[in-house]
Amino acid sequence: MLNPLREAVLEANLEVVRRGLVLYTFGNASGIDRSRGLIVIKPSGVPYEKLRAADLVITDLKGGMVEGVLRPSSDLPTHIELYKAFPGIGGVVHTHSRFATSWAQAGREIPCLGTTHADYFHGPVPVTEHLTAVEVEEAYEKATGEAIVRRFTGLNPAAFPGVLVTGHAPFTWGKDAAQAAMHAVILEEIAAIAYYSVTLNAELTGLPAVVRDKHHLRKHGPKAYYGQPPR
Amino acid sequence: MLNPLREAVLEANLEVVRRGLVLYTFGNASGIDRSRGLIVIKPSGVPYEKLRAADLVITDLKGGMVEGVLRPSSDLPTHIELYKAFPGIGGVVHTHSRFATSWAQAGREIPCLGTTHADYFHGPVPVTEHLTAVEVEEAYEKATGEAIVRRFTGLNPAAFPGVLVTGHAPFTWGKDAAQAAMHAVILEEIAAIAYYSVTLNAELTGLPAVVRDKHHLRKHGPKAYYGQPPR
Amino acid sequence: MLNPLREAVLEANLEVVRRGLVLYTFGNASGIDRSRGLIVIKPSGVPYEKLRAADLVITDLKGGMVEGVLRPSSDLPTHIELYKAFPGIGGVVHTHSRFATSWAQAGREIPCLGTTHADYFHGPVPVTEHLTAVEVEEAYEKATGEAIVRRFTGLNPAAFPGVLVTGHAPFTWGKDAAQAAMHAVILEEIAAIAYYSVTLNAELTGLPAVVRDKHHLRKHGPKAYYGQPPR
Amino acid sequence: MLNPLREAVLEANLEVVRRGLVLYTFGNASGIDRSRGLIVIKPSGVPYEKLRAADLVITDLKGGMVEGVLRPSSDLPTHIELYKAFPGIGGVVHTHSRFATSWAQAGREIPCLGTTHADYFHGPVPVTEHLTAVEVEEAYEKATGEAIVRRFTGLNPAAFPGVLVTGHAPFTWGKDAAQAAMHAVILEEIAAIAYYSVTLNAELTGLPAVVRDKHHLRKHGPKAYYGQPPR
Repeated sequence: MLNPLREAVLEANLEVVRRGLVLYTFGNASGIDRSRGLIVIKPSGVPYEKLRAADLVITDLKGGMVEGVLRPSSDLPTHIELYKAFPGIGGVVHTHSRFATSWAQAGREIPCLGTTHADYFHGPVPVTEHLTAVEVEEAYEKATGEAIVRRFTGLNPAAFPGVLVTGHAPFTWGKDAAQAAMHAVILEEIAAIAYYSVTLNAELTGLPAVVRDKHHLRKHGPKAYYGQPPR
Repeated sequence: MLNPLREAVLEANLEVVRRGLVLYTFGNASGIDRSRGLIVIKPSGVPYEKLRAADLVITDLKGGMVEGVLRPSSDLPTHIELYKAFPGIGGVVHTHSRFATSWAQAGREIPCLGTTHADYFHGPVPVTEHLTAVEVEEAYEKATGEAIVRRFTGLNPAAFPGVLVTGHAPFTWGKDAAQAAMHAVILEEIAAIAYYSVTLNAELTGLPAVVRDKHHLRKHGPKAYYGQPPR
Repeated sequence: MLNPLREAVLEANLEVVRRGLVLYTFGNASGIDRSRGLIVIKPSGVPYEKLRAADLVITDLKGGMVEGVLRPSSDLPTHIELYKAFPGIGGVVHTHSRFATSWAQAGREIPCLGTTHADYFHGPVPVTEHLTAVEVEEAYEKATGEAIVRRFTGLNPAAFPGVLVTGHAPFTWGKDAAQAAMHAVILEEIAAIAYYSVTLNAELTGLPAVVRDKHHLRKHGPKAYYGQPPR
Repeated sequence: MLNPLREAVLEANLEVVRRGLVLYTFGNASGIDRSRGLIVIKPSGVPYEKLRAADLVITDLKGGMVEGVLRPSSDLPTHIELYKAFPGIGGVVHTHSRFATSWAQAGREIPCLGTTHADYFHGPVPVTEHLTAVEVEEAYEKATGEAIVRRFTGLNPAAFPGVLVTGHAPFTWGKDAAQAAMHAVILEEIAAIAYYSVTLNAELTGLPAVVRDKHHLRKHGPKAYYGQPPR
């Protein structure tokens, strides 16, 4: 069932490992089939070296098991909240990559300090608020997704393809699992460059809006001219 | 004698090298057969490329040689103190991995700043006190083990699977040598992320206790739900 | 057409990837045939793994297409300004390499703190001024090149084979594309060492001029004695 | 002539490249045959990939060519000063490795903050004084060697197997070229750990003398008990 999606989600899971973003099983990727309302996600705690497409788990948007014998990633409820709130996304990736996680632990949004950043995030990378004790205890992973969605009030998830969960780590998304994985890789690089930038110059505020917009819009939207035209 | 344990301890020694935690011979791993009270440990100063299972040394819990022609690691007396004081552990690993050693040299415990940390350490990574001059001169490696054990008064070694020896480097442990090696790898990553976090935000104190407990207990203890159920 | 130059420019593009300076398609290299006034440059947004010499684009010095079916790199107008203003250069490379980009984002020139630096840059690595809003909106990439050229008033591009575009990233150049790529690699290393140097000692100003000159001139110019004599 | 020494010096040159300490041709290794008073050293500016034992240059202790068609490393006069002043050494290595060079550029000696350091350097890694303008202009490389030797007044080069040349980079030595290369690798690691330590805790002064001595002397000298006994 959903074999092409299974293969794409497997590949996204392996890609973040190959790129050095995932230690042991500290990460997960999923994809969604919007027409059927079904999610394909990594099983929880299974080593990547052994992971096959057939091991991935299929659930519905309430988290009910549709196909698979293994438990889904414990972060599934977070993925579900994102798929429900952001109808344009087709894939979600979660990692504990070193620099993005450091900003998340520091509780600081990543300021938009350069064009590398502006090419992908149309402003600072947002950070969620802390959860309340009740949220943590009752439905922690679902509440994490809700906190992300709350933080995106007024923000376009296509222009900000990721977030830092405070005290935790990044989530990224994209039109499919492959793009979500690419955004995880780029967010890590943005986070690294920003780390070195702010420790070189603590007074930095951000790129002038005109440059930020120029770079973002030369890659995205109707007037984009970066890359090759769609065939 | 103890061939499966020899193989497991060899593998743990090689694993920390493959993961980039050990330069030259700056590390060692051991395992214990609790039923016989025998320890298998790396010989001192032997290059990893040449290390075979048969080169490992077997000693009793007083450090007496039981099998082997090479000298055991000079840190053997530290390992022995840990095995004696922590009956639940089956393996010990010592490295000079870069970030964990930096915190040890800085004499700072690693604060629990995020969920990556809380998943494995149920609070700050502890640091030992300095030894006295007499301890250093009379039985340095044994005294190092005793200092770790003293520091763990009131701490559960299963919930804190490692320590920083002040001015020196980390020791980690686990139910077996493989898990001790995995904890060495994770401690290094925790140490790196914490380094970048505190240099981004010097005011950080730590993750709220409710999140720390949630993450630790979703992976450990009777209510754990991360990973697959035991078969 | 221009097949040897195509091969050399392909190789320079691949070299900066192999050296870890380029993530995805965040970079580009070009070379010029001065006798014909033709530039060979990477196409925009094409993955490096698939890039063949035949995919490279040939343009004239006004950016007009001479050979090729793909769009040239969107940074072509920047390369053109450099070729027009610096007649001694034969290749240009642009990357978003981590440390050089961090200095660019920090808006700080890289001070000449050591002989590694002085061997290649005869003083601080310059940073451009911010563009005006009009420049960004009307002809951003051309204006970027013009800003570099303005910054080089009074500077010899052979003695300073690169620049940091403020809020953006480095451009380097050389007698050909291969040397431009080598300068990109060296600039990244200089930027990294300078980062660690200034965070170790915030008071640093720079290498004494006599040592800076000695190192630069033992490698460059009529009295150079480093390396082997030309055959 | 001196073929075994040629092979050993070639291997030391390649080792520092394999370990990531040398970019392009930014380094050199040499060895000495004390009985004949002859030095084998890398030729200047020759890429490592092409370097063969037969390309190495043999000189006497005045720098006079004895065998070879290529120019020796431009740093030869520095090596010669070290061989003349430190009769116990058999090999010298020079690199621009990232962290050691950062301390050299910062003009700071590396404090002895932990046992990794004390195992190899019996105290802080020394830094030379700046050269005078006359020294730089008249015989720069020889004067660099003389500055190192001056700095070692009262220091035992066997207990301090390396130095930072201020504003430049490290030199290390050992009983032979292989050990000099090993000391270059270890100095880089010590420099990295010290960097992270002092940025975590700016108040650090150093390891208590009793621990420093214990570690140094368990590896070196008549009472050493680390490693295996000599056969």
